[in-house]
Amino acid sequence: MRDAYVLGAGQSSFGSFPDRTYLSLFDEAFDAAIDSVDEELSPDVIDEAFLGTLGVGGRQIGLSGPAVTEHVGLHGVPTTRVENACAASGYAFRQAVTAVRSGLVDVALAGGYEVMTDASSDHTRWWLGVSGETEWERMSGTTFSGVYAQMASAYMDEYDASVEDLSRVAVKNHGNGAQNPKAHLGFECSLEDAVSAPPVADPLNLYHCCPTTDGASAVLVASEDVAREHSDELIRVAGTGASSGRVGLFQRESLTSIPATVRAGEDAYEDAGIDPSELDFAEVHDCFAIAELLAYEDLGFCDRGEAGRLLREGVTDPDGELPANTSGGLKSKGHPIGATGTGQIVEAFDQLRGEAYVQVDDPRYGLTHNVGGSGGGVTVHIFEKEEVLA
Amino acid sequence: MRDAYVLGAGQSSFGSFPDRTYLSLFDEAFDAAIDSVDEELSPDVIDEAFLGTLGVGGRQIGLSGPAVTEHVGLHGVPTTRVENACAASGYAFRQAVTAVRSGLVDVALAGGYEVMTDASSDHTRWWLGVSGETEWERMSGTTFSGVYAQMASAYMDEYDASVEDLSRVAVKNHGNGAQNPKAHLGFECSLEDAVSAPPVADPLNLYHCCPTTDGASAVLVASEDVAREHSDELIRVAGTGASSGRVGLFQRESLTSIPATVRAGEDAYEDAGIDPSELDFAEVHDCFAIAELLAYEDLGFCDRGEAGRLLREGVTDPDGELPANTSGGLKSKGHPIGATGTGQIVEAFDQLRGEAYVQVDDPRYGLTHNVGGSGGGVTVHIFEKEEVLA
Repeated sequence: MRDAYVLGAGQSSFGSFPDRTYLSLFDEAFDAAIDSVDEELSPDVIDEAFLGTLGVGGRQIGLSGPAVTEHVGLHGVPTTRVENACAASGYAFRQAVTAVRSGLVDVALAGGYEVMTDASSDHTRWWLGVSGETEWERMSGTTFSGVYAQMASAYMDEYDASVEDLSRVAVKNHGNGAQNPKAHLGFECSLEDAVSAPPVADPLNLYHCCPTTDGASAVLVASEDVAREHSDELIRVAGTGASSGRVGLFQRESLTSIPATVRAGEDAYEDAGIDPSELDFAEVHDCFAIAELLAYEDLGFCDRGEAGRLLREGVTDPDGELPANTSGGLKSKGHPIGATGTGQIVEAFDQLRGEAYVQVDDPRYGLTHNVGGSGGGVTVHIFEKEEVLA
Repeated sequence: MRDAYVLGAGQSSFGSFPDRTYLSLFDEAFDAAIDSVDEELSPDVIDEAFLGTLGVGGRQIGLSGPAVTEHVGLHGVPTTRVENACAASGYAFRQAVTAVRSGLVDVALAGGYEVMTDASSDHTRWWLGVSGETEWERMSGTTFSGVYAQMASAYMDEYDASVEDLSRVAVKNHGNGAQNPKAHLGFECSLEDAVSAPPVADPLNLYHCCPTTDGASAVLVASEDVAREHSDELIRVAGTGASSGRVGLFQRESLTSIPATVRAGEDAYEDAGIDPSELDFAEVHDCFAIAELLAYEDLGFCDRGEAGRLLREGVTDPDGELPANTSGGLKSKGHPIGATGTGQIVEAFDQLRGEAYVQVDDPRYGLTHNVGGSGGGVTVHIFEKEEVLA
């Protein structure tokens, strides 16, 4: 099995764009990905595409994948649309990596797109609702805020955590996002702001919840030969891990861990041959503040109940030992569902090339963590700056 | 790149099942696939799953893939839901083949499911509508019957074809489906019935259109080692081909050919190293009668304008030179959107093992052809009975 490399990666601005379609947003992301490649690359080299989206706000639903690739000029390129809720493009990326590793293709495109703020359609909210478990969550009125609020309550109870612990996720991620011109909510917030915001689903308040966002992202995955030919630095996909889990929270044994994250992380570390202590940064799935705390523990960044301490001690700040969500994360950069997974990989690519807006010091390994729903499907990827070429 | 093999394949009954969920239908298909394996196989060997569905009739939409794998006991198995309209599980199968070829997994599950007849939800019809091109087809009132009717009109005009040519597709496929106990419309029809049925979208009448169907299908794809250990015969995935195309019919140069089928077919023949003359049977995507005629020509079974002759001369009858849709096809076996692609592969598997309901004589090569929408995404697969083991 040969290795796969990230050749280029880019994203559209994330935000609320009532006048733009998913095609226009993806076009921007695709151009950014092509432009990010060191040596000029013709899109004609792309052999296959894997695109993630939950739904596109009442516009093209069936076959939106081919609609997107045809729109950006990739005529005839086999295109698979992946839907795994918020982990759609994390999974799309995994399939792109697999396709390159198999030798079936030399260059694959992975990406995602979502239009969520379109108020002229009732589909946006409906799509979000249906990604939860249907029979016992959605139909009894539970929303995603409600599901994650249950996890937050249980966590605070089990580990004596505080609203400040949750709020520090917002403070850190907004601090990072304020320096990212592509962020949806690119402003800072104070701990006081974050603690005292209006409630959404107790104990989660407005600053503990990510926004609904329009946006797109695109990543080019290539064989080593193609990567060597077109890159100044080799960014290798060192590890891929994925796992499904019970879609309904009520079906799981614990509310304070997402087992699919644990398994996907273990698989990714094993595939990469490293352990968490070797990571130099991570983009974790902070759809709600509690999700970032659980991610730290499920991914082995610290022991159970220690996530709050990591935040308090600045371990995951940009100048800490393991910076997390330097992009601003879902909280500040935004969460255009299908675009989030490959959007995280855009940040990993930029970090490893030393071109991030909030740059960490000379990183070698970075991790991305993408969660569907409340943990029904998770992907974890590990990237390595392998070699600086002449 | 190593080879991938079909280890087992099975489907649920296809039909109208108002009292059954997509979970129950997939369960039936999954059990049938596991039971079809020669030597007892524990589902625990399944490493990854790829499941196709357009939508599931208003039930679980987001994350229905993991909901399905968890339901059949595949806890934690990474599961990608693919949506490529009617080609969803053709593409899911391609990803399963790629995953096995890559060496990342030894056994992959590909499958699909759809609940279409549920009249308690308005989603079924909506899902179907949204798979067409949105801006110039769906929003101007064109349905899929309408789109294929335009192709039929153009074909009849260009090649002086008759309503009898279209109708012979129904006669043949119903004749085959009548012998398939899992078919949705398992009854015969005469040429007179098929010619004189009530109009749907001129020139297509009721017998020129497939039904809307509930059902599920599942295929197990494995490495050679696993296949040798568990099989009496080796059924190899000789070739995979896929292509996207313009989603809207109005965007294409011709109405009498689906370019994505031509490209996917060429790729599959090249991957398999054979040409169409070596095929012993084919399952082609006959969502409408005209689609089967176009498939014959796009896949190189005959020259342009010759498809009607093939039907008249019985070339694609079960005892002809190249039997097509021995399962009954979408027309008679049924078309549960997401289940159709892997449902065709169930027939290919059964044929190559000599266990089909309408068995062709000692076949070596078979082809399956799965079309999304009116040709926005197509997959073609070629299977070979490679070796009879001890």
